[in-house]
Order: sequence, then structure tokens, then C-alpha cells
Amino acid sequence: MYKLLKTCGRAKRGEFHTPHGVIQTPVFMNVGTIAAIKGALSTEDLERVKCQVELSNTYHLHVRPGDEIIKKLGGLHKFMVWDKPILTDSGGFQVFSLTTLRKITEEGVYFSSHVDGRKIFMGPEESMRIQSNLGSTIAMAFDECIGIPAERTYVENSVARTTRWLERCKKEMARLNSLDDTINKQQMLFGINQGATYEDIRIEHAKRIAEMDLDGYAIGGLAVGESHAEMYHIIEEVVPYLPQNKPTYLMGVGTPENILEAVERGVDFFDCVLPSRNGRHAHVYTNAGKLNLMNAKYELDERPIDETCTCPACSRYSRAYIRHLFKAKEMLAMRLCVLHNLHFFNTMMEEIRQAMDEDRFPQYKKEKLEGFRRNGM
Amino acid sequence: MYKLLKTCGRAKRGEFHTPHGVIQTPVFMNVGTIAAIKGALSTEDLERVKCQVELSNTYHLHVRPGDEIIKKLGGLHKFMVWDKPILTDSGGFQVFSLTTLRKITEEGVYFSSHVDGRKIFMGPEESMRIQSNLGSTIAMAFDECIGIPAERTYVENSVARTTRWLERCKKEMARLNSLDDTINKQQMLFGINQGATYEDIRIEHAKRIAEMDLDGYAIGGLAVGESHAEMYHIIEEVVPYLPQNKPTYLMGVGTPENILEAVERGVDFFDCVLPSRNGRHAHVYTNAGKLNLMNAKYELDERPIDETCTCPACSRYSRAYIRHLFKAKEMLAMRLCVLHNLHFFNTMMEEIRQAMDEDRFPQYKKEKLEGFRRNGM
Ligand SMILES: [Zn+2]
Ligand SMILES: [Zn+2]
Repeated sequence: MYKLLKTCGRAKRGEFHTPHGVIQTPVFMNVGTIAAIKGALSTEDLERVKCQVELSNTYHLHVRPGDEIIKKLGGLHKFMVWDKPILTDSGGFQVFSLTTLRKITEEGVYFSSHVDGRKIFMGPEESMRIQSNLGSTIAMAFDECIGIPAERTYVENSVARTTRWLERCKKEMARLNSLDDTINKQQMLFGINQGATYEDIRIEHAKRIAEMDLDGYAIGGLAVGESHAEMYHIIEEVVPYLPQNKPTYLMGVGTPENILEAVERGVDFFDCVLPSRNGRHAHVYTNAGKLNLMNAKYELDERPIDETCTCPACSRYSRAYIRHLFKAKEMLAMRLCVLHNLHFFNTMMEEIRQAMDEDRFPQYKKEKLEGFRRNGM
Repeated sequence: MYKLLKTCGRAKRGEFHTPHGVIQTPVFMNVGTIAAIKGALSTEDLERVKCQVELSNTYHLHVRPGDEIIKKLGGLHKFMVWDKPILTDSGGFQVFSLTTLRKITEEGVYFSSHVDGRKIFMGPEESMRIQSNLGSTIAMAFDECIGIPAERTYVENSVARTTRWLERCKKEMARLNSLDDTINKQQMLFGINQGATYEDIRIEHAKRIAEMDLDGYAIGGLAVGESHAEMYHIIEEVVPYLPQNKPTYLMGVGTPENILEAVERGVDFFDCVLPSRNGRHAHVYTNAGKLNLMNAKYELDERPIDETCTCPACSRYSRAYIRHLFKAKEMLAMRLCVLHNLHFFNTMMEEIRQAMDEDRFPQYKKEKLEGFRRNGM
């Protein structure tokens, strides 16, 4: 159940009640692809960096260790030892981006595993069954994520099929949630808006899925090659047609700047691999922009990554030390930077919520962006 | 200052007072080669696994980031953020095992860096200066670590030179400790006994260095290819000639069984890369022997690595989860196993001390070894 606490223009401040606790929004979900956060972080660490929602990838877990194994072990929450909300994606994005030899039919998608080449079929029912085995809090509908640019006719047909798939997802989830041995019988379903950069297709699709009374709505198929301006434009066009009294999730986005812009346009759920991927490459976020800790100028820098940060890395270690760890190829380097970056994103979301609670989001956003631009984030 | 609290046969239970706090012995020192513990562990983690002494490698730190850099940053304690004791080795072992193109002269050793091939000279004075720059609690004397087997004449000449080098080390350290800008003016020096497997050379050398009134004495050049029986024999021969009222350190040893046997023979300082190296390869220690978590039989095993363990890994995660992390090549797998293994070694030392305090070390040792042999450690 979503409770809209406050708005500021289109920006939404909400509370999403789930079987695994309440999510305060806007929220950034922390990506733990294959039931682990890259950079040697554990779920214990996620608690330390103020993570509210962990996000795992259905396709990856289906391939390894297998969703049946995870079900036997009591589901993803028990497996990872995480009692807060978990969102699983549908597998669609990975099927379309990672695998080869695929064939899309009305039924679903045929493809080969990126690990061992094994032939796999996944359609709406399979995706729902896998996510039900994982027992995540929120399951995502199985959709086709279309690359940009794309032919109008292709997009029309694909979106129509994605709608039909969504109906099948909803039906299958209802069935699964009613079974005796289902791990999370209150699993929630989010639908996904598609339509590439065609506003009219996006809007028609948004209207269509809004009628289906799902637990939340995502905008998918963005941040796949279009410009930021195009992305913001699509968000502006689509958000008015998605239910305001439901979570609005912008999938796979993005930079701190992208998040601030999207919050202003009515989005309140985010996820992105940037903080952990950048952290593993010595790129760290600060309120004065991004730093590359490999830079020689940090060799004797005794300051923490960000002097205002209270994360486990900044509360103890210097830039000089972390830079040395990267140079020496020590795994600890990545761990410290990923801890910092996730803490940075989660803290920014906390600040956004507080700014909205205090009716000063536009000012907060302006100042935050000015800070970033000092160093060029 | 070393205080012998108790003996049990030759086994020693002591307290070593250092400028960075008291070390309870017998003690296992945790290896952080290049100012980081392999497996993405930080000094904060070392505190959680009950580490008393961190050990860093002089040669590695001289090459990268450079001891001058570390001195500018306030020394190794400040660099790594660790206020407990640190022991640095002399660089000798790495010079003889890692580098190429070396030439040994009376002055010292000429060799090429294993990182960039740069030509480096290191002798007793250089080693002392580097360790003084690092500011470690305990510095090790610069010696030649002789491989086994070795020609008697070679060993005689080498050991005589190692003794001359030790005199130079002592003199240089006294000079360095008296300088104004020295980081740790109370740096301590341990001498190293050598002599390959020649008992008489070992004993003569032990007598010779015992006269020099150093802060502690190490037995070096073991665990380099000889059998366990040969190693135990040499320890038995040498220990009676090393001062009982000083720390007795067996370098680079070893397995839990090796440690128990050496404690019985009068050793009370240990260090070894085994717990972290094995942990990174899914080999974990338990009181019932070693496990290989890659084994298929752990796929659905919901137990922690060791049901009696209170480490950060065992208090939260299952064998099945950690096995999955290894299969998925997630760094977290290594981290959890290294945390467990170091905790296991440090806890065993704690148990040894307690058993000695309660006059039941022989019984403790017997039961511990029986437990290990159940699974074959
Ligand atoms: Zn930080
Ligand atoms: Zn453990």
C-alpha cells in the first residue's frame, strides 16, 4: 500500500508499505545482482550504508544458483540474510542485453545462457514463477526492453505484446500467491511502461497499464542510449498518466543529477549500478563532484573521500590510503569506495525526503546541483 | 618488555609490552602484506576478528607506495588506521623469494623490483631505515633466508654474515631511534636465527644472537621445504638456546597443528598467510577439520561454516550462500572466508592462552588435534 505523504509540484514524498516493512520514498534501491553486492559488500554492510531496498536480478539467479535452490533454502531473504524489502527485476532486461541466439514469440523469449550456453525459454509465466521462487517483496512484470532508436512499427507491436504479457504476469502471480508452498504470498507486482521515445505510444501504454491496478508502475527502456534531455522529456510526458497514488519507478537510472531531475518530475523509485561500478574503478561521489582516486594528487591527501561523510570508509580511511590500495590492486580499495558511493546515494535520498518534508526541495536540488558542478559530476 | 606469566613444560604464556599496547602470547599475527589484508579486510575488520598484531611486509611497502610516502603520512599505524602493535619483516625473505638478478655481498643484496624491474639495493641499514620510516612497533633484522636443502659451507658463511648484519641492524636502529623526526623512537628489534637444518650451526647462532640482548628472537628459514618432523626437531634443538624471557617467534608458520606443536616447544609468536590464502580459495578451518566450500555437498547446507564460531561470517551466513558466492565469483565469498579463518586462528590462540592459564594445555592440545583429524585438517 502506497501512501502519498506530500507533493512538491510533481515530486512525490511517499511511504510504501510492504510485507517486509515500510519504504520511505523517494528511494534508491541498491543493486545486488546475483544475491551479492559487487565490491565484497554483504547485507550487513547494506544496513550500515542505510539501504532500504535490495535489488536482485531474476535472470542471473535463475542461471546461478537456480531459483529452485533458493526456494529450497527458504527464499532470497533468508539466503542473503536480509529482512527488508527486495525487488527482483523480471529478467527481461538481461535476456535482451546479455544473451545470444534469441527468438521472441508471443509466448516468450528463447535464448542461451551467458554462463554455459544452455538453451532457456522465458515468458511472463516463467518470470513470475522464478520471482515467486525467489520470494522477493516486489516482482517486476516481464517485458521487452527496446533499444533506442527503434522503428515505430517495431515499437508498436512490441508494446502491444508487453501489455499482453503484463496481463499474463498478473494472472500468473495471482495463481502463485494463492499456492500453499509459495514463500511470499503477498508478493507485489509492478508493471513497466515502454514505447522507446514515441510520446504517444508511451502515453497510450501508460493509460492502458494504469487501468490494471498494479502495486506500482515503472518507466522502462530509458537510459539505453538516448540523451538526458530526451529521457527527462519522456518522463514528463508519461508521469501524468501513471497513478500518483502508486510508486513510480524509473528503471536503471542514474547519476545523482538524473535522480534529482527525475524526482522533480514525479519519480520516487530508482536503481542503478553506477555507485558500485564507479566505486570499483576508484570513482567516488562527493558533494563537490566526482573524484578519481587514482589521480596522483591524492598520493599524500590525508582527508577522507568526503569530509562531510559518515560512511565506514570516510569515518576511518584517507584518500592517500585508498589510492594506495587501488595501486596495489587490493580488493579492499573497491570495497571502501563502493561502501562510500552507496552511502552517498542513500544519504542523498534521505536529504531529498527531508527537504520535501520541510518544503524546500527546489532549493535543495538547486544547491546540490551547484555543488556537484564545482568538480563536474 | 616481555613478562613470562607461566610455563607448561617448554610452552610459554607471556605478555609483551610495546609502545602500542600489550600483546598476550602465544599470539598469531595477521598478515597485511602491503598495508591491507587480502580478501578486502580493513583494520576495522581486524578488530572484529580479535587480531592483536598486524604484520606488514617491508619489501612490498618499500616498492609501493614507498616508505618515504608512508613516513610523510605519519607512519604505518596512521596510514592503515591501526593503533595496536605492527610487526614489519625485514624485506629479506621477499628479496630472496620474489626478486630476480640478485647479488649478495657483504654490504647487502642487489636485486630488481618484482613490480617494475627497477634496481634496488637493500642491506641491514637500508632495511632498518625503511622499517623506521614505516614506524612499526617491532622491526625484524635483515637476514638471508636460506632454502632447504642447502650446502653446509654455504650455510656457515651465510649465517656468519647474517650475524654481522644483525650487529649492523642493532647499531643502525639505535641511531635511527635517537633521531628527532623518527616516528617510533621506541621501535623494537627482533633477531633471526638461521642455519637451515644443521642443528649445530643453528645452536651456535642462537647462542651468539642471544648475547646481543635484543627485544625478541625469531626462528627463520623454516617451513621452506623441510618436513614437519624436521621443523619440529629444529625448534626443539634451538629454543633452549634462545632467551626464555623474550618473545620466541617462528616465522611464517603455519597450520593450526603446526602452531600447537610449536607452542608446546616454546614458541609464542606466529604469522602465516595460510588463513587468508586458504580463505580466498574456499578452504575454511573448523574445529572438526578443514572444509572446501566449493564442494557440491554444501549446495543446500544452511549451517554456518562452523556452528561454534562467532565470527562476522558465521554469525550471519550459511555454507550454501558462501558456496554460491564462490561459484558466482563474487568477492564477498573471499571476504567472508578470510574473516572466518583469521577469527579461527585468533580464537585458537585465545584458547591456548586460556588453557595455559588453567594448567590444561596438554589436554587442550590433544583434544584440539583429535577434532581436526575428524575431517583431516
Ligand atoms: Zn564516505
Ligand atoms: Zn566463523
